[in-house]
Amino acid sequence: MNQTAKPLNLRGSGIHFSETFPSEVLENTVREGVFSKVFILTDENTRRWCLPLCSALKFPYEVIETPSGEAHKTLETCGLVYRELLNRGADRSSALIHLGGGVLTDLGGFVASTFMRGIPFINIPTTLLSMVDASVGGKTGVDFLGYKNMIGVFSSPLMTLVCSEFLKTLPHAELVSGFAEMLKHGLIYDASIWNGLKARSDAAVALEDIASSVGVKAAIVSQDFKEEGLRKTLNFGHTVGHAIETLHLLSEAKKTLLHGEAVAWGMVVEAYVSYRCFAGFSEAGYREVSAVVRSLYPRVVFSQEEVGTLIRMMGRDKKNRSGRLRFSLLEAIGRCTYDVEVSPQMLREAFQKVGLCG
Amino acid sequence: MNQTAKPLNLRGSGIHFSETFPSEVLENTVREGVFSKVFILTDENTRRWCLPLCSALKFPYEVIETPSGEAHKTLETCGLVYRELLNRGADRSSALIHLGGGVLTDLGGFVASTFMRGIPFINIPTTLLSMVDASVGGKTGVDFLGYKNMIGVFSSPLMTLVCSEFLKTLPHAELVSGFAEMLKHGLIYDASIWNGLKARSDAAVALEDIASSVGVKAAIVSQDFKEEGLRKTLNFGHTVGHAIETLHLLSEAKKTLLHGEAVAWGMVVEAYVSYRCFAGFSEAGYREVSAVVRSLYPRVVFSQEEVGTLIRMMGRDKKNRSGRLRFSLLEAIGRCTYDVEVSPQMLREAFQKVGLCG
Repeated sequence: MNQTAKPLNLRGSGIHFSETFPSEVLENTVREGVFSKVFILTDENTRRWCLPLCSALKFPYEVIETPSGEAHKTLETCGLVYRELLNRGADRSSALIHLGGGVLTDLGGFVASTFMRGIPFINIPTTLLSMVDASVGGKTGVDFLGYKNMIGVFSSPLMTLVCSEFLKTLPHAELVSGFAEMLKHGLIYDASIWNGLKARSDAAVALEDIASSVGVKAAIVSQDFKEEGLRKTLNFGHTVGHAIETLHLLSEAKKTLLHGEAVAWGMVVEAYVSYRCFAGFSEAGYREVSAVVRSLYPRVVFSQEEVGTLIRMMGRDKKNRSGRLRFSLLEAIGRCTYDVEVSPQMLREAFQKVGLCG
Repeated sequence: MNQTAKPLNLRGSGIHFSETFPSEVLENTVREGVFSKVFILTDENTRRWCLPLCSALKFPYEVIETPSGEAHKTLETCGLVYRELLNRGADRSSALIHLGGGVLTDLGGFVASTFMRGIPFINIPTTLLSMVDASVGGKTGVDFLGYKNMIGVFSSPLMTLVCSEFLKTLPHAELVSGFAEMLKHGLIYDASIWNGLKARSDAAVALEDIASSVGVKAAIVSQDFKEEGLRKTLNFGHTVGHAIETLHLLSEAKKTLLHGEAVAWGMVVEAYVSYRCFAGFSEAGYREVSAVVRSLYPRVVFSQEEVGTLIRMMGRDKKNRSGRLRFSLLEAIGRCTYDVEVSPQMLREAFQKVGLCG
């Protein structure tokens, strides 16, 4: 698990970074693809705020709009898109361009990968979260019965365009949400990234920060595409984070959390568990993670009963085996291991000690 | 397109042939897989008629039942299975065993390949059709809006058990339906198979016939898994056949046709088109195909208006490009080519001349 060599080479990965929208790059790819039709998939928000930035594109395309938000990341929404594709004459030589955040690129990737057993797709992430996370790695999918990403396939886009211009269209909270995944990439793989980001109380990022964060993800994924080992480290913060996010989504009384907000608190809980499980991960390490998250993210609070619900929800995490909870945990800042069994009791203690029990 | 070397080697293909149910083979595979849970997916019919033949299995499993029939090969049925899997504690280390015909193995393969981004599955085809067709080649999927196999992925089973004992549970019409795909394998790839089968007016088959038919499919698929070229020849008879099948499925007045019955007539129409398009495919060749199909399959008849509907339906075939109809056609008995553009006028003529217009 010791990652001393940190390959960050993105050449040949199909990921293109730019500050302004690279119309020409996209046009060339579409020209080379000789597609029968091109569809741009947007949601209500990205159609309004992001599609205008692509207005100069010199190839014919049709726009398909999906409803915005995690609540619509379902098989039903896939059905709407399949139907539109069929009605508008899409065939096996057509292509999809996904212009949106992680919900849209995850759902769009699944639709493209299953429509007529798979058509090519291009990702244009419009949120920081989708730039540093969903844009790389080939995980596609939708939620099912309230459980995140239960239905999906591994499938890679033809190309990903990471363009920081879109971040100007983004509410500040969305930016901070994406920042959580960048913090995570530092924590699990590269302490220098963590050290460079941890003092940024405004979560401001430049294109180079995005590129090095994507580099971490690409490096990990290239070593373990199907998540049989190392890739599981990317789930640090997510076992607890997904449960927190789902609970907020299902609860009428709670406001919906952004993914990164939930993951940030998940990282604090899992950093606490890391400190309690591994001699190498010090209390100071946990306190550092905790302080950074506290300075950036709105606090969440749960009743004892809700903590029980959260732990039962973690039982549905895809990393588990035979109903036992498995976690990716920090061995040090910049180093992560995986498949660590953690007891429900330890998790209860963590929620308590971290201060998430109201 | 000339296939002079006809590789029929099935070693290493993961396909096991036997006359009686090979409990031990299945038990060994399950033991080696160390799965957290094993589910047997059946439909109403195979639970009743086929599952009892597996009663001696020495590993714990749970049965999930789906409704029988092509009308249930939908995303909604997938949803029912996903829900059962979740409710019964399936995880990423669980496995599915599909016991059924092509509808069940196609749908089950799609469910397994998308549940938690893919869990292993084993196919046990129980119909002749699924033994010689669906059991090999890694095509999984469901119908959408009445169009066949619109949603799916390419994904291979861990193992396929072809056991001729199940054929004893099969109605005669189902057997004759599967026989159509065996005839097709001869027509597109191996004249000696065609010559061996064409005089069997009772559609009787032995395990060796099944194995050599599977061999044709495996040979083709191994050369072109993703259907970019040669594999398209397996669609001979299916462009017209799928349209006929769908029209019967959607029409209240017509009785539902079995897949092979529709494909058989599709082969006659496409053999006629082959004769009209290629100097090498003689009228005698077309007449031979026509005579064999007429001797085995109940005749179908369409009004002029219905022929128009059928041709429009063919416009939705996955092989088309930019709305133009593309066919796989015979160059000779035992040799097939693909991506041949055929006009709607030629298809109208074919339906007329073949005698399918009432």
